[in-house]
Amino acid sequence: MIADKMRPLVENNSAIRAMFEEGKKMALLYGRENVYDFSLGNPNVPAPKAVNQAILDIIKEEETTFVHGYMSNAGYEDVRAAVAGSLNRRFGTHFHLENILMTVGAASGMNVILKTILDPGDEVVVFAPYFMEYGSYVRNYDGVLVVVPPDTKTFYPDLEEFERRITKKTKAVIINTPNNPTGVIYSSGTLEKIAGIMEKKEKEYGKSIVLISDEPYRELAYDGAEVPYVTPFYHNTFVCYSYSKSLSLPGERIGYLVIPDEVDDSQKVIAAATISNRVLGCVNAPSLMQRVIMRCLEEQVNLEAYNRNRELLYNSLKEYGFECIKPEGAFYLFVKAPVDDKEFCGYCKEHRVLLVPGSSFACPGYVRIAYCVSYDQIVRSLPAFKKIAEAYGLMERKEGAE
Amino acid sequence: MIADKMRPLVENNSAIRAMFEEGKKMALLYGRENVYDFSLGNPNVPAPKAVNQAILDIIKEEETTFVHGYMSNAGYEDVRAAVAGSLNRRFGTHFHLENILMTVGAASGMNVILKTILDPGDEVVVFAPYFMEYGSYVRNYDGVLVVVPPDTKTFYPDLEEFERRITKKTKAVIINTPNNPTGVIYSSGTLEKIAGIMEKKEKEYGKSIVLISDEPYRELAYDGAEVPYVTPFYHNTFVCYSYSKSLSLPGERIGYLVIPDEVDDSQKVIAAATISNRVLGCVNAPSLMQRVIMRCLEEQVNLEAYNRNRELLYNSLKEYGFECIKPEGAFYLFVKAPVDDKEFCGYCKEHRVLLVPGSSFACPGYVRIAYCVSYDQIVRSLPAFKKIAEAYGLMERKEGAE
Repeated sequence: MIADKMRPLVENNSAIRAMFEEGKKMALLYGRENVYDFSLGNPNVPAPKAVNQAILDIIKEEETTFVHGYMSNAGYEDVRAAVAGSLNRRFGTHFHLENILMTVGAASGMNVILKTILDPGDEVVVFAPYFMEYGSYVRNYDGVLVVVPPDTKTFYPDLEEFERRITKKTKAVIINTPNNPTGVIYSSGTLEKIAGIMEKKEKEYGKSIVLISDEPYRELAYDGAEVPYVTPFYHNTFVCYSYSKSLSLPGERIGYLVIPDEVDDSQKVIAAATISNRVLGCVNAPSLMQRVIMRCLEEQVNLEAYNRNRELLYNSLKEYGFECIKPEGAFYLFVKAPVDDKEFCGYCKEHRVLLVPGSSFACPGYVRIAYCVSYDQIVRSLPAFKKIAEAYGLMERKEGAE
Repeated sequence: MIADKMRPLVENNSAIRAMFEEGKKMALLYGRENVYDFSLGNPNVPAPKAVNQAILDIIKEEETTFVHGYMSNAGYEDVRAAVAGSLNRRFGTHFHLENILMTVGAASGMNVILKTILDPGDEVVVFAPYFMEYGSYVRNYDGVLVVVPPDTKTFYPDLEEFERRITKKTKAVIINTPNNPTGVIYSSGTLEKIAGIMEKKEKEYGKSIVLISDEPYRELAYDGAEVPYVTPFYHNTFVCYSYSKSLSLPGERIGYLVIPDEVDDSQKVIAAATISNRVLGCVNAPSLMQRVIMRCLEEQVNLEAYNRNRELLYNSLKEYGFECIKPEGAFYLFVKAPVDDKEFCGYCKEHRVLLVPGSSFACPGYVRIAYCVSYDQIVRSLPAFKKIAEAYGLMERKEGAE
């Protein structure tokens, strides 16, 4: 009954989602407060109050058939113009409404642009560790994923390995900064180097190679870290944005795709991407949420709550002997596993601590901890983390290494 | 830059959507009240008051991170159980929550199930006239669309032609009742015959052939016409439902896919379809709207408003000499064009009457009139329709024929 292409997907279903479902079952069994679920990037910090206020105001102020009705497949013109204006104010870009295509979250934006540009066999380069769904998105359009191995010292992209992996079949490169799962933010210098390599390869092969910047974590940067806007660095850049994290609206599926004028054949790409959005079945981004976004462009989730989580969890884990770089953005810690990462996740689960193995990000030997949970959950989980560290003798190992 | 598969889509962009965009431009030029836009199935009848009340109540009563957060990719369990329960009460089915997968509208539901089951080269049978997007959905997964020609006398499916078109490559059959664009409702007898043919062919070829019932118009039936529920007729039936029309929420993108236990390999299909929903980038149906649906299961748009439109427009057009069957459901009239349908639409546009040519539904020689507009628009448009009829001498032709 099932398509051949779906079989491996069913057999290797997302470990993240599997852990999420497991967590819900365990919460029923042991009580929610006794399960420390760090598996899913599902924000515990609520949406800014302005979001719900905007919903109430829109229902009162705007016409019902307009609010819930069809609009152009690319989204309401006023919403797209407002998004473009907000980006221009913040990042000095020169977008207009045609450059903005409202999408069903960033995941849908990625599908839309990949469907628009990928021919079967086209290669798409990603940097490990990477969000495993990229592979599914690329394979949806018969593309081939090419993985740049991780530099586990810094978790910055290994640019030599990157350059080596761009071939005449390369159509796209996906970056994700701030990064899931490492929390690393690419600096201007790194983006310049990536752009330089891609420009060189475009000339060498005489073809367009696009950079797709997946940016659900753009607003989540700590200690005043800057997250450079990517489009000024490279002409063939698309941005996939989501309000899932910046406004804590992951279930609402609202985001946008940026197709700058600087992109090759930009008019055709805009037209084709709008059609992709329609024929993939999304038709348009959810209408009420589009209207909400327009009223909440200056809003942001309480970053201090995530920062407090980050500081407590990072400092505690370091104290217990875990190895981990301090994340600059997003809401994940990517921690070295003392044993095989899947085995380690299994052991943690015995302590009711749910993590995702690094193997799920093409980076075995690590585990991802999503700290977008309540501060209280982190406090309550610390004794378990401490016990786990003791069981593996992490402190002794650390001291031995020092 | 653009994928080869996208080129024909860009070149033959949806005539319906093109007309919709045209209508918006003309409204700016001539004033909205002077443009008679019958092109798009965008309901003018507002959502029931209970919908907006539900939104306000949910914002007040339910926890924000829950309302806007991630849930299982298939949707909130309580919502799915409530949908299953409502179907069981109304149609005597025996669904449980696992049979219901919440989707980003019916279009997304169709993509989800087609991605789940189609291998490249698989044939999907549709009955002309049919919603042209079906072709795009099928080609998204490298399926081949096979069209059963229309019976323009009754617009009921031509079952002999249907049987002839089922081959060993047939994987699916799509039906749409009440039908867009004809308004025809398939009777129990017709469904029995379709099921009988498919059962026979399943045995003959020793394979599963599925029936996909696209049901955005299920609730829109006039004069007490019954719309039989399809799953009891045939074991391998999937239902793609949308609240776009029944609750006037087309922009919100909320619907569901039914995968009954009776379907071959149903457990695997449910698992695979849930993954398809995720990897196509939808991830889940919009969360707030899922919660709204649960509170509005017994609600329905004001059908009398559509019926009033139907009666006025149908009777007036017949009076002017147009040929048309009286639609039993949906909100379209499918009218015989006196000349080539595209030429006729062009002529109507000169009278600021926007229609969609039947060619866009693989049924040239007809035009679709979407009467989901204000009653007032219909009243104001009648002189234009009368002039158009006079220009083609329709009354004289009709009298000549009689």
